[in-house]
Amino acid sequence: MSLDATLARIDSDLPQATERLFELLRIPSISTDPAYKDDCQTAADWLVADLESIGATVSKRHTPGHPMVVGHIDGKGPHVLFYGHYDVQPVDPLDLWDRDPFDPELQDTPNGKVIRARGSSDDKGQLMTFVEACRAWKAVNGTLPCKITFFFEGEEESGSPSLIPFMKDNADELTADIALICDTGLFDSRVPGIVTMLRGLLGEEITITGPSKDLHSGMYGGAAMNPVRVLSKIIASLHDDTGRVTVPGFYDGVPDLPEDVAAQWEGLGFDHTAFLGDVGLSHPAGEQDRTALEMIWSRPTCEVNGIKGGYTGDGFKTVLPSKASAKISFRLVGTQDPHKIRESFRAYVKSMLPPDCEVSFHGHGASPASQMQTDNPTFPKALEALSEEYGMAAAYIGCGGSIPIAGYFKNYLGMDALLAGFGKDDDQIHSPNEKYDLESFHKGIRSWARLLARL
Amino acid sequence: MSLDATLARIDSDLPQATERLFELLRIPSISTDPAYKDDCQTAADWLVADLESIGATVSKRHTPGHPMVVGHIDGKGPHVLFYGHYDVQPVDPLDLWDRDPFDPELQDTPNGKVIRARGSSDDKGQLMTFVEACRAWKAVNGTLPCKITFFFEGEEESGSPSLIPFMKDNADELTADIALICDTGLFDSRVPGIVTMLRGLLGEEITITGPSKDLHSGMYGGAAMNPVRVLSKIIASLHDDTGRVTVPGFYDGVPDLPEDVAAQWEGLGFDHTAFLGDVGLSHPAGEQDRTALEMIWSRPTCEVNGIKGGYTGDGFKTVLPSKASAKISFRLVGTQDPHKIRESFRAYVKSMLPPDCEVSFHGHGASPASQMQTDNPTFPKALEALSEEYGMAAAYIGCGGSIPIAGYFKNYLGMDALLAGFGKDDDQIHSPNEKYDLESFHKGIRSWARLLARL
Repeated sequence: MSLDATLARIDSDLPQATERLFELLRIPSISTDPAYKDDCQTAADWLVADLESIGATVSKRHTPGHPMVVGHIDGKGPHVLFYGHYDVQPVDPLDLWDRDPFDPELQDTPNGKVIRARGSSDDKGQLMTFVEACRAWKAVNGTLPCKITFFFEGEEESGSPSLIPFMKDNADELTADIALICDTGLFDSRVPGIVTMLRGLLGEEITITGPSKDLHSGMYGGAAMNPVRVLSKIIASLHDDTGRVTVPGFYDGVPDLPEDVAAQWEGLGFDHTAFLGDVGLSHPAGEQDRTALEMIWSRPTCEVNGIKGGYTGDGFKTVLPSKASAKISFRLVGTQDPHKIRESFRAYVKSMLPPDCEVSFHGHGASPASQMQTDNPTFPKALEALSEEYGMAAAYIGCGGSIPIAGYFKNYLGMDALLAGFGKDDDQIHSPNEKYDLESFHKGIRSWARLLARL
Repeated sequence: MSLDATLARIDSDLPQATERLFELLRIPSISTDPAYKDDCQTAADWLVADLESIGATVSKRHTPGHPMVVGHIDGKGPHVLFYGHYDVQPVDPLDLWDRDPFDPELQDTPNGKVIRARGSSDDKGQLMTFVEACRAWKAVNGTLPCKITFFFEGEEESGSPSLIPFMKDNADELTADIALICDTGLFDSRVPGIVTMLRGLLGEEITITGPSKDLHSGMYGGAAMNPVRVLSKIIASLHDDTGRVTVPGFYDGVPDLPEDVAAQWEGLGFDHTAFLGDVGLSHPAGEQDRTALEMIWSRPTCEVNGIKGGYTGDGFKTVLPSKASAKISFRLVGTQDPHKIRESFRAYVKSMLPPDCEVSFHGHGASPASQMQTDNPTFPKALEALSEEYGMAAAYIGCGGSIPIAGYFKNYLGMDALLAGFGKDDDQIHSPNEKYDLESFHKGIRSWARLLARL
C-alpha cells in the first residue's frame, strides 16, 4: 500500500473528480419539496452507479420517502461506515442566485477556485470526498485497507423521517466499528476540526386561525381578531429581554460548559467580530451573558425560520387575514428533551391564544443533542490525518448545526461516530450562491486517504 | 317623463343588463398588480363603448397609472357627477374560490340569486346600477332629466395615485352640483343607508433587514439577529392590552361620538353577535370599551394586512432569514392627519430597532377621514328614493371602509358627495367568492331612477 502514490493519484485525478461531482450537482434533489421527488430518485441512481464503478456492491433501498443508497466493499481490517446525504436545501429566493443553482461552475475568486452550486458543500461535495478517496486508493492499491460500507440518505434536509426505521430494520448490515460522517466544516479556513458536540433540533409549524375567511379591513378592522397580530405577539414573547427563551422548562438539561472545554474553546482564538462581520452584523444577538461561540455551540436557541399571513404580493390589499403561520425551530444542547419541549411549547402557545382564535401544530423533526465519545481509537488517527494534511493541529470543536445521525448511530446501532468535514463558514449552505472551495474538495479527498492509511 | 315606465323598462331589461355587467366582470382589471395593466385598459375601453351606447360623449384619459373614463350627457336641471371604479382587488388565495373569479355566474342561493365574480359588488356591479338607470331612463324618455358626468377610475384598489392630479387638471370639467358615489352598502339586508362618515386610510409597508444574507440557523442561530423576531416584536407592540394603538399621537383628532349620532346608531339595532358570527367570531377584538359598531364606524384602527419572511414553502428549512416585511394599514377618523401618523409610526418603528437591524418604509395611500355635509338638497331626495324602493326608512350611517374620493371632491372641487350603495355585508368583497345579489343590482338601478326623477 502506498499513501504517497494515492495522494499523487488524487492530485492528478482532481479534474475528473470535479466533473463527477458536477454530474451529481446537476440533479436538483430538494428533498423537502414534493415537486423534486423524481430528482431524488435520480440522485440515488447516480450514486448507485458511481459506487458500482469503484467495485462496491450497491443497492437503492426503498423507504416511505426518498430512497437510501447502501454499498459495501469488502476488505481486511476494521469495518468503517461512511455516511453522507445526497439531498439538498430548497433554493429560494431564487432571484438572489447569480446563476442557476443546479448548473455547477468552477469559479475563480480572490480566495481561490470554488465550486458554485446548491449542494456543493452541503452535502454532495463532502460526500464525494470520501468516495473519491476510495476510488484513488483502489486504483493505486487494488484493494481498500478496510471493509467499507457507504450509507447515503436523501432526507437529511427534511428531517430524516425514514432514517430510524431503516436503521432498525437493517441494523446488522449497517453496524460497523465506527461511522464516519462528512457533513461539518473546518474550525476556520486553516484549522481542521472534529466535531464532538452537536446541537439537537426541534421543528414546529404553527398556524393561527381567527375569522373563518379573509375579511375587508375596512368592514371588520378593529372588531375582528387579526391572526397576524396574535402570531406576532406569540413570537415576540418567546424570548425575554436578555435573549433567553421563555418556553417553560426549556432550560431543563442544559449543562454548564465544563471549564476544560471552555478553556479549550478560548484557546481556539475564535474571531467573534469577523464571524458576525462576514454577514453584516456586529452584535451577538442571543443571551447577553454568553460569547458568540457559546451561543452557537453550547447554548439552545429558538428561531423563526419563516412566517406568512395575508397579502404578500406587490402593492397593497386591505385584507384582514383569516390565518397566519410560522415555522419555528429550536436548537437543543445537553440532555434537553425535544419531545418535552414540543409539548411545553404547544401548551405555551395555547395559553397565549385570545378568544376566537385557534391554533394547529405541525411537528417537524425532533432530535436531541449529541456528544461524541472520543475514546474510540479512530479519533486520534483522524486528528493526525487532518493535522498532517492541513499542516495545522486539528481541534475537537462544537457545531451549532444538528446532525442527528450521529446520535442515532450510537443509540440504535451502538456505534461511535466521527464527524469531520471540510466546509468553510462562507460556503453559504442553505443560502443563495452556495459554494465549496476546490481546496476543500481536494484536501478533503486527501484527508480521507490519510485516514484510510492509518486504519 | 315617466318614472313608472322607466321602472318597468328596468324590470324587463334586467337579463340584458346582467349580461352587460358580466362582460365587464370578465375583464380581470386588478389594478395593484402590474401583470393586469392591459386588462385595466380593456375595462376602460369597455366602459367608453358602453357609455357611448347610451349617447354620452366619452373619452379614455391617460394617467401615469391606469386610465380614467369621463363621459358627459347634456341635459336640463342640475349637474350630477357619478363616480365608480372599474378596478378590482386581487383574487388570491385563488384556491379558496369555488370557480374562476373572472367567469361570472348567476347562482341560486338560499337568499336568492347572486352574481358571483370578483368585482361584482366592488365596484363593477354598483357602478353599472347608475349606468343602467340612465340607459332605461333615456330609452323611455328620450333625454335625461339632468346633466350627467360619468367619472370612472381604475386605481381605487391601489390607492388612487393619479386621482388628485387628474381632478386638479380637470376641475372645470368634473365640478358638478353634487357627486354621487356608489361604492358602499346597505345598512343591513333590508335597510338602505346613505354613508355620512367614512374612515381614512394610511398604508405602510415595512421591511426589516438583519444579516446581509439568509443564514443557516444552525451556524448562526442564537448569535445573529433574526428580523422576523424583530418585526414580530414591533407588531406586537402596536396595540396595548386594552386594544388601543400605541403609536405616539395616534389619537390626536379622534373625536368623541356626538350623543345624537350615538343615539341614532343605537336605534339602528345593529346585531353585533350576527355581524361577528357571520365570520366565525364571537368577541369584538378592538378597544374593549367600545361596541363593535363604534369600532368599525367611528374608531381608528391599526391592522396587519400581510407579513412574510424566511421560508414559507412546504416542509421545513432551517434558515435564519435576512429580511422580513409587513403591510400595515391604519383606518383613520375625525381629523387624524395621515401624514403626521405616518411620520410618528416610522419614528416609533425606528425606536424599536435593535442593533444590526435596518428598516425601510414604502408608503402606500394616505387619506383622511370624511364627514359628509347633509344639508345639500340631494340628500333628503336620496333618502326618499331609497326608502320608497326598499319600503324601509333609509338611514344616515357610517362606514368602516375608506373611500377618499368623497373628501377629494369636497377639498379639490368644492363639491358635496353623496354615498349610496346596495352591497350587503356578506358580499365577500376583497375575499374569495365575492358576489352581488341580483336584488341589489335590480333595486340599485331602480333606486337611481327614483332619484333621477326627483332631481
